[in-house]
This record gives sequence, structure tokens and C-alpha cells, in this order.
Amino acid sequence: MTTIAVLGAGSWGTTFAKVLADAAVLGGHETTVRLWARRAEAAAEINESHTNTTYLGETALPEIITATSDLAEAVQGAEVIVLAVPAQSLRSHLSVVRENLHDSAVLVSLIKGLERGTDLRMSEVIEEELGVGPDRTVVISGPNLAMEIAREEPTASVVACADELVAEHVAALCNNQYFRPYTNTDVTGVEIAGIVKNVIALAVGICDGQKLGDNSKASVITRGLAETTRLATVLGGQLETFSGLAGLGDLVATCASPLSRNRTAGRLLGEGLTAEQATERLSQTAEGMKSGSAVVELARQHQIEMPICEAVVAVLEDKLPVDRLASLLLARDLKAEGK
Amino acid sequence: MTTIAVLGAGSWGTTFAKVLADAAVLGGHETTVRLWARRAEAAAEINESHTNTTYLGETALPEIITATSDLAEAVQGAEVIVLAVPAQSLRSHLSVVRENLHDSAVLVSLIKGLERGTDLRMSEVIEEELGVGPDRTVVISGPNLAMEIAREEPTASVVACADELVAEHVAALCNNQYFRPYTNTDVTGVEIAGIVKNVIALAVGICDGQKLGDNSKASVITRGLAETTRLATVLGGQLETFSGLAGLGDLVATCASPLSRNRTAGRLLGEGLTAEQATERLSQTAEGMKSGSAVVELARQHQIEMPICEAVVAVLEDKLPVDRLASLLLARDLKAEGK
Repeated sequence: MTTIAVLGAGSWGTTFAKVLADAAVLGGHETTVRLWARRAEAAAEINESHTNTTYLGETALPEIITATSDLAEAVQGAEVIVLAVPAQSLRSHLSVVRENLHDSAVLVSLIKGLERGTDLRMSEVIEEELGVGPDRTVVISGPNLAMEIAREEPTASVVACADELVAEHVAALCNNQYFRPYTNTDVTGVEIAGIVKNVIALAVGICDGQKLGDNSKASVITRGLAETTRLATVLGGQLETFSGLAGLGDLVATCASPLSRNRTAGRLLGEGLTAEQATERLSQTAEGMKSGSAVVELARQHQIEMPICEAVVAVLEDKLPVDRLASLLLARDLKAEGK
Repeated sequence: MTTIAVLGAGSWGTTFAKVLADAAVLGGHETTVRLWARRAEAAAEINESHTNTTYLGETALPEIITATSDLAEAVQGAEVIVLAVPAQSLRSHLSVVRENLHDSAVLVSLIKGLERGTDLRMSEVIEEELGVGPDRTVVISGPNLAMEIAREEPTASVVACADELVAEHVAALCNNQYFRPYTNTDVTGVEIAGIVKNVIALAVGICDGQKLGDNSKASVITRGLAETTRLATVLGGQLETFSGLAGLGDLVATCASPLSRNRTAGRLLGEGLTAEQATERLSQTAEGMKSGSAVVELARQHQIEMPICEAVVAVLEDKLPVDRLASLLLARDLKAEGK
């Protein structure tokens, strides 16, 4: 009997609980999936009618998913704990997790972002706050638009852990007929890819808002992935991660999808709205708008050129007129590719 | 005074002639651009009204472009000869070029395809047929949808030649306010990327036709680029080319664009049409349908796994029901990414 806790019943947390439950049923494993929802009404809805209408409409959740709004209860005795809470609230949730943590529990992060103030990646916050080693910290990332996975459309993803055997264990737990995990040991690279992606998606959205075509957007995606790779390799990430599902795959899916908040926010900026106006229109801040300045800061510390991220941050801070972004991106001197 | 001949007045050849002419005007260079059109009426239209309405609508062509339907006349004395004719007719045109070739002329290929029968890349056909070395053969490729460039939307591209100085020379000739060339020395990689791209675009189109979402398409693009890279590195191409504009960039632009013939052909296949019916509907064969089997053959010769290209060819040859393609792409055993 494996007990898995999923903390966070938003669209990705709930969808991933379904992925785990469907994998258990398919594999004939004895598994319990406990889903923690912040709101008691959401937990009650999941237990009673097996839906989470706020985020997933009428999607039917497997019955082996049980929900609770008591975080300590959700974590108690769980061998695998999946984290799907907002980046900036992770640390406060972890203090409750710590008091109820199973000795050998594995922590799995679905979260994309840097902690404000510390600029730490989510796996670093987990390791620091819970005192666990990198062999117990796993990150999952890829071209994973939650709504499509909830509809059981075929998707591939990356399960990364410094300890390959742990990555394989978690991959086996979520492998089912529509969700296809590939393992990887590059936790840093996978996390950086997920974070910078949202800033690049803003740039692609800005091109949309400026009515630029697919050539321009493809150039921004390509050069954006190149600057992400430059940053991540300096931080210890591996080159191959960026041509893989968590790098290229996630970036392409986000930039192609009308479901992406970051791309939509970028489009509004491209149409001439300020960052504040765009946030108001979306009723929330897109993740790339929060992490953009931290990414640029990190790049400067390591003396890495990231012209696309810098231009996006300058637009967000009202220091660059949005209609100058495209020409700026093409304005570098004639040079060899990759330099 | 530099004389440049562009052979082929289709959409890409004509657009590239405009790129060269605008670059000359911007740089204040004395340049003549001669455009060869197969049809005398097309040449007359370009000379008289400075348009090529068949391919580029009302786009105004710069006046320094002169057109002729006499191939020998176009080539005579040209220091740079740009080839933009169909892949399968290149060799026959080269026999005329050879008789009029300037001693030190540089040959630039805009063509994507393998020659049927020989499976040779276009640069190989040029070198074989004209007896020129790799230091005189240049390939240009990137996220370059012709119609967008004709509208002067910002675009980046790769100019590849074994001799970096020659690549820089050609890059300088086409660098203007909307077309941004980057140099590269990996001719093989750039050509293979352009050829296999059309087959992957068919696969993405098939996903469209099957109503699959952006996760699935992003996975096909990512895994497709990985298998392209595997083939190209065995043939001597370099890894970095594939994460660059001619690899990733071109693939993303083609797969995103409703203007792409290959993606459209794939969509029709995904909706259940046979290869013949799709060709009839488009009034022409998509390039990926022609080169798919040659790509798979090349992969088998070098014992490279290319599951996406193989599946596409099996669909084209009516050996695989199209609705099995997606599940087949996800059906490989659990494994580490990149293996």
C-alpha cells in the first residue's frame, strides 16, 4: 500500500492527483491518493461528487482520491508528498509538513517559480526547510497544460531527481495511458527551464499583441531558449535538458496555447496595456511578471547576457516602449549563432 | 559593383531577391540583383510593374531587381548565385549554370529536400554538378515563412558555409532592417534540419487533424527534433545547430503557421484522407511526403531510431491507421530522456 499526498487542489494539483490515481488503477497497485485543498468546500466536493468544478469543470476524478482541508492529516504517513501550492506560499506550508513528515518520504515539486527575497528554486526551499537531501527531492515539468491532461490527451513529461532510482520510482507511480514520464537527473536545469519559460512566454505574447508573425515568434522562442540555457549551464544545469521536454517542450506548449496566462498577459502588454492594467484584466499576476526581475538579477550576478528577458523586464517596469521590443531583439551585431 | 543572380521566382526566391535588394540599398552598396523566372510573363511583370502577384500579391519589389527568363543571361558574370528552384529540378538547371559560371562565384542554396534516387543533399548536388568545393557552397535556412518576410516582419536566419569568411560575406549581403542573418559552419546540420522538419510538420499536422492539444504537439516537436539531431550528428552535423534557428526555429515556425503546406497536408491525413486525396486537395505534394521515405531509409542505413518519421511514413504508405499514431508515439518503454 503506497500513500501519496498531493498538496494543492488547483488545476495542476488536482489533475496530477488524477494522473497518479489512473496510474495506480492501470498498474494494479494498492495506492491511496490524498488531495489537500485549502478550502473545506472544495475538499467536500471532491469527496462527495468526485469533481473540482472550480478548476476542472465536469472532469470525473477517480474514487481512490480522497480530499481533506487538514494539511497535517494529508501528510501523515505519506511516502510521497507532491507539492502544488503557489511558489510564494511553499515555505509556510512546509513548516506544517515538517512536523508530520514520514522518515523516508520523497518530496515532489510541481511548482514553477523562484522564492521572492531569497531567489531560491523550489527544490532548494524544500531541502532547506525540511532538511532532506537531493536524493529525496523530485521535480516534474514538461509540456503539461493541465486542462489537456485532465481530458486525457497524450502528454510526455520529465521526472527529475539527483538519484536516478528515485526518479524511476516516481515515474512508475505516474505512468499511465495518457501521461508518459521520462527520467532525468538535472533538477537545476529542469527548474530553471520552467521559471524562465514564463518570461519568454511574455515576450512571445508581446509579439502577438504587436501583430508580429510566426517567424518573429519562432526567433524569440529559439533565442529565448538559448539565453535560458546560458543561464542554467552556469548554475549547473545540463545542455540536454533544454532541448528536451522540460525545456523546449514546455516552452513550445506554453507559447502555442491560448490557455497560457503568461502568453495572454504578454499579448495585453503588446497591445499597449501597462503591467498593472494587464494584471487587473487577468484578475491575477502572471508568474513571469513576478519572476522576470529575479531572473535578470540572477543573470547579471553571473554575467550572462539575457537580452529577451531584460527587454521584457524593461517593458514591465515601463522603461522601454513596447513597440521597440521587436527591433531591439534583432539589433545585435552580426555574429555567429550561439555566441 | 556586386552582381547577384537569384534562380527561381517562386515565393521564397522572389522574397529573397527583395531581401538582398533592400540590404544593398540600406548598406549603400552598388549591387545588381537579377532574378530568373521560368515563365517570360513573370519576368516581364517584375520588370514592368515591380510585382510578382502570383506569389507575393501586391508586394512592391525594389527597382534594382531585374528579371529575365534566360537562365544563362541571369548567371553570366554573377559573383553570387542563389538557388531557389524545386529540389528535383536543381541538377538540370545546374548544367546551364556550369557553362556560364564565374570563376570564383559562390553558390547559395535556399532549397530544402533530398534528391530522389541519389538521396543527396542540395549542397552535395551543387558540389558534384559544378565541381566547386565546400568553401563556395552556402546554405540559408531558418524560421523563414516567405510571406511574412515579404511584409518586412522581423526575421532571423542562419547562413552556413564550411568557410566562415564566405558565410560572413553572404550574411553581409542579406542583412537589412527586417532580415537578421547569423553565421554557422555546419552545412550538413542545417540541411538535414530543413529536410526532416517537413516530416515532423506532417506529424504535428496529423495531431491537429486528430484534435490533439498543444501538449501532444509540443511533445512531437520536441521528440521530433531529438530524432532529427540523432540522424544529423551521425551524418556529421553539430548538436548546436538543432537548438538554433535552422533547427528549432524553423520547426517551430512551420508547426505554428497556418501557411505551412506540410502541416496542412498532415491535418488532412489526420482527418482521415489518404496521401493521394490530401495531395489532390492541396493541388501539390507537400515536400515532407516526398522526402519522408528517403529520411527513414537514411536512418535505417545508419541504425538510428526515428519513431516519429517512421510512423508518418507508415501512415503515408497506408500501413498504419492514422488514429494509432499518437498512442504509438507515447508507447516506448519507460526510459531516461535523450536515450
